[in-house]
Amino acid sequence: MKNVLVGQSGGPTAVINSSLAGVYETAKACGAPHVYGMQYGIEGVLEGKLIDLDTVLGDKMDIELLKRTPSSFLGSCRHKLPDPTVDEKPFVQLFELFRQNDIGAVFYIGGNDSMDTISKLSAYGKTVNSEIRFIGVPKTIDNDLMLTDHTPGYGSAAKYIATILKEVICDSSVYDLRSVTVAEIMGRHTGWLAAAASLAAGPDCNGPDLILLPECPFDEEAFLKRVAELEKERHNVIIAVSEGVKNKDGVFLCDLVSTAGQLDAFGHKAILSGTSRYLADLIRVRLGCKTRAIEFSTLQRCASHLASRTDVTEAYQVGGAAVEAAMRGETAKMAAIKRLSDQPYRVETEMVDVTKVANFEKKVPADWITEDGMHVNEKFERYARPLIQAELSPIYINGVPRHIHL
Amino acid sequence: MKNVLVGQSGGPTAVINSSLAGVYETAKACGAPHVYGMQYGIEGVLEGKLIDLDTVLGDKMDIELLKRTPSSFLGSCRHKLPDPTVDEKPFVQLFELFRQNDIGAVFYIGGNDSMDTISKLSAYGKTVNSEIRFIGVPKTIDNDLMLTDHTPGYGSAAKYIATILKEVICDSSVYDLRSVTVAEIMGRHTGWLAAAASLAAGPDCNGPDLILLPECPFDEEAFLKRVAELEKERHNVIIAVSEGVKNKDGVFLCDLVSTAGQLDAFGHKAILSGTSRYLADLIRVRLGCKTRAIEFSTLQRCASHLASRTDVTEAYQVGGAAVEAAMRGETAKMAAIKRLSDQPYRVETEMVDVTKVANFEKKVPADWITEDGMHVNEKFERYARPLIQAELSPIYINGVPRHIHL
Repeated sequence: MKNVLVGQSGGPTAVINSSLAGVYETAKACGAPHVYGMQYGIEGVLEGKLIDLDTVLGDKMDIELLKRTPSSFLGSCRHKLPDPTVDEKPFVQLFELFRQNDIGAVFYIGGNDSMDTISKLSAYGKTVNSEIRFIGVPKTIDNDLMLTDHTPGYGSAAKYIATILKEVICDSSVYDLRSVTVAEIMGRHTGWLAAAASLAAGPDCNGPDLILLPECPFDEEAFLKRVAELEKERHNVIIAVSEGVKNKDGVFLCDLVSTAGQLDAFGHKAILSGTSRYLADLIRVRLGCKTRAIEFSTLQRCASHLASRTDVTEAYQVGGAAVEAAMRGETAKMAAIKRLSDQPYRVETEMVDVTKVANFEKKVPADWITEDGMHVNEKFERYARPLIQAELSPIYINGVPRHIHL
Repeated sequence: MKNVLVGQSGGPTAVINSSLAGVYETAKACGAPHVYGMQYGIEGVLEGKLIDLDTVLGDKMDIELLKRTPSSFLGSCRHKLPDPTVDEKPFVQLFELFRQNDIGAVFYIGGNDSMDTISKLSAYGKTVNSEIRFIGVPKTIDNDLMLTDHTPGYGSAAKYIATILKEVICDSSVYDLRSVTVAEIMGRHTGWLAAAASLAAGPDCNGPDLILLPECPFDEEAFLKRVAELEKERHNVIIAVSEGVKNKDGVFLCDLVSTAGQLDAFGHKAILSGTSRYLADLIRVRLGCKTRAIEFSTLQRCASHLASRTDVTEAYQVGGAAVEAAMRGETAKMAAIKRLSDQPYRVETEMVDVTKVANFEKKVPADWITEDGMHVNEKFERYARPLIQAELSPIYINGVPRHIHL
């Protein structure tokens, strides 16, 4: 029985540490003598930064705190390994380090780029007849990975977006005034997160009136016409917009803002995160409405206090499934989630070919988007609603959630 | 026994509806035949918009939902009544309406301007020999009301700020990079909310390295010197800043941004909410650090999913105390919170003269701020920590908190 190495990569999520808990506890249960963590991902490994996780996660309470700690406990990186046929050096270094630490299996928790890392490491391993197994564990709030029904991290981000949008909608109707609120949601290339705004809807809330996704090119005139109609119907119009919406020429709306040439107070080009700002200005100028832009910010990827318990559990399960697969001898795989049914919601884990995941991108299906391109339909609801179910209560100490850190 | 009228005014909070619940349930318990709600505050009353609350809050479950619904259930306004000696008309109209609806007591839940309304109504009532009692119920996230230890709404905003700052701090340290994060917190005139960032600190979190409050004029050179020192000591520097910080000339930092003359994409002067942006740009330009600005946004006043149970309870209690005082015959008062001890934390309600509250503003005491003016000390901790204790779990249905609306 050899040792296990696990790392976290890419942007954080509210549940990436639950996957780490799943890898750690399953590896220990399977008898791995040591489970090492990569500090700051593969980049840290290249600098020799390994941690014996027994020294930091020895107690069951540590595991409970780990599940409730947002962001990447081990630290992360955005390092992309080179093509080994072009530059073998980092691979030689890494495999030497694996040998020194008697590593039998490597797990990398991350998104697209992380699956590329697993793909390259396993391909290189094959060429040097290594017996080390390389398995990817999916993670991304963006939900854009192929071959998995959804990605751990998405459900919690979706629950956060739906919950705070509900609260913002309460807030927006407080005065007897007409207004248009534009809420900007993460998602540079796909609209999964923006679509989650629709989950705010229920018997006590209309949810957003419009949702703009990167999957649909922005049509300014059609949009303004629709907003003008809505403005007549109701006091408060609520628009959810993905930061990645582009116009028909393929230009990000936020770039239309920054090309207007603003300078910051120091004469430098201003950094404006601007999709919601752009739309709020557009509506104000063209329709003369009172508008308000709000950005949902980085909390979308770190609000563990609002994590979906379904998501926490599945994040743990894919971590565990990855370890079991490695123990069975599988390599070059990613642990995926396969949906068995929507109602009742049931899933199982399965192993998929990591090379078919890396460097692809899953978009919101066209037939889940309304015909006018400005909302999602009941197919999205059926898909996403189960992912935000149930809660994992933070452990509050002295009024704030307790976390765990290296 | 006469009827009761209650309204909500000014900006919303996470617990303003708990005060409404306290007024409603206590008034019913005291035998008020009808409890009427003002739709959109005193402005709505002037338009005859009254609602019999029995028709919407008849069930105990409605009360539980009301306590968990952010923003103002009845709607709000920012209407300031004129001086009755200058313009008597609205007073004549209001008192006629009170007479028609057989109103014996009026309660107004709000901040400074609302206490001004109570003050004027009671003064006018005296001149016309009215027996109607007018009582204010304090509410504001800003915590700037005189004669009350703190204001309902502040504890929940403080808990939200401390909690999400903890999460943002986790997020900010994910990569092996040096960075400075500037978090912008509400509070145009006082630093109570910005100071609450300090509550993020504990055994698992350093909290913010610096806190800038409107109480201390911003000294650019001293600030940059301190940031440069911190930058040497640690990877990630965290700065909490009140939106209302001004420079030595009394100019808001955010106005320094907008006077830089940016135009939006449509050629109009851009609306930039800019204190954190200004500081992030300043640090980037002057110290050459990677910086990040984040605004905590309107969620500070509407995140009922993270409300402090202490705050919820006290908000209810001041509502109830206001009704009891009116039943005893008091008028021109505000229900206040008096602290009996810090440890264990104990408070009681008391009635204070509303004219001594209206139009004053309570600042963070100078001796609660560190000598360099860039943090708060243990006196603030002792004051504020009890206010964020305990939670009121939302009622989650279908993955999101359920609310109640008119």
